[in-house]
Amino acid sequence: MEKKERKILVAVDESEESMYALSWCISNLISDTNSNNKLVLLYVKPPPAVYSDATGYIFSTEAIAAMEKYSMKLADSVMERAKGIFNNLNANGINIERVVGIGDAKSVICKAVQKLEADTLVMGSHGYGFFKRALLGSVSDHCAKHAKCPVVIVRQP
Amino acid sequence: MEKKERKILVAVDESEESMYALSWCISNLISDTNSNNKLVLLYVKPPPAVYSDATGYIFSTEAIAAMEKYSMKLADSVMERAKGIFNNLNANGINIERVVGIGDAKSVICKAVQKLEADTLVMGSHGYGFFKRALLGSVSDHCAKHAKCPVVIVRQP
Repeated sequence: MEKKERKILVAVDESEESMYALSWCISNLISDTNSNNKLVLLYVKPPPAVYSDATGYIFSTEAIAAMEKYSMKLADSVMERAKGIFNNLNANGINIERVVGIGDAKSVICKAVQKLEADTLVMGSHGYGFFKRALLGSVSDHCAKHAKCPVVIVRQP
Repeated sequence: MEKKERKILVAVDESEESMYALSWCISNLISDTNSNNKLVLLYVKPPPAVYSDATGYIFSTEAIAAMEKYSMKLADSVMERAKGIFNNLNANGINIERVVGIGDAKSVICKAVQKLEADTLVMGSHGYGFFKRALLGSVSDHCAKHAKCPVVIVRQP
C-alpha cells in the first residue's frame, strides 16, 4: 500500500536554533524507510514597510534596492546553511522544496501551513531576535496557538 | 551501531485531543525500524488541595477518599484508552511506561521532562478544560515555553 505523502514545513531563519530544529526534524520525524516525505523549508523576509524608519524619512530607491538585495542574500545564506545540514546528516535523498515568504513571520508561517497543506510545522522556539520578540511577541508562541497542524517547538539545549 | 534509546514523553488526560496526540506520536515519531524508543505516558492528577472548595468548607475524610478513588479511576480510564490506541495502530511492540503525577499539570509535566530525561514531549493543545484554561492559562503554552526539550503541540483537526 502506498503511503500518503507527508509534508513537513520547517521555518528557518538566521538563528542557530532554527538550524538545530531542522536537524531535529531530519533525525526524528523523517524515518529512512519512508520516502514519501516532503520537507518544505520556509524563510520569511520582512515586509518592505519595515524599511521605512519610524521618524518618517523616506529612503531612496537605491537604499531600498540595497536593502532588498541584502535580504535576498540573507535568504540565500540561510538556505545554504540548511544545505550543509542535509549534507552532514546524509539526508540528501530527502525530497525538498524551498519557499521564501514576505511579511510578518508569524502570519506568513501560519498561512503557509494552510496553503501548502502541511502535516507538521517545525520551528525553533526563539528566532527573530530578542527585541523583535519583546515588541511583537514570540513567533513560535503564535504559531503553536494558531497553526492548523501539529507544531513542533524545538529548543536548543 | 546501537542507537541511543530515545525517550518520548506523552502527556495524556481525559481529552480526545490528548489521545489524538498519542496517535500522532505513534504514527509520526516512532519509526517501525527503530526499536530503541521508549514511550512514557504521563497522566497528572490534581493535587489534593483542589478538593477543598473556595468557600472554606472542609470535606469529610470519606468525601476526600471518594474523590481520591474517582481520580484514580480517571487515571485508569485514560490509560485504558491509550491502550486501545496502541491496539488500533498495531503498536503493541513499543516499549511503554506509565507514570501518574500529582500536582499542577504544567509544573509536573515540565519536571517530568527533566527527571525522566525525555528527548521529546508530546501533548494536545487544549486539555484540562476551558475554565481551568482561562483561569490558570494553557498547560501546553507553559510547557512549550519551559520544557527543556523539543515540544510537539498537537491540535486535533
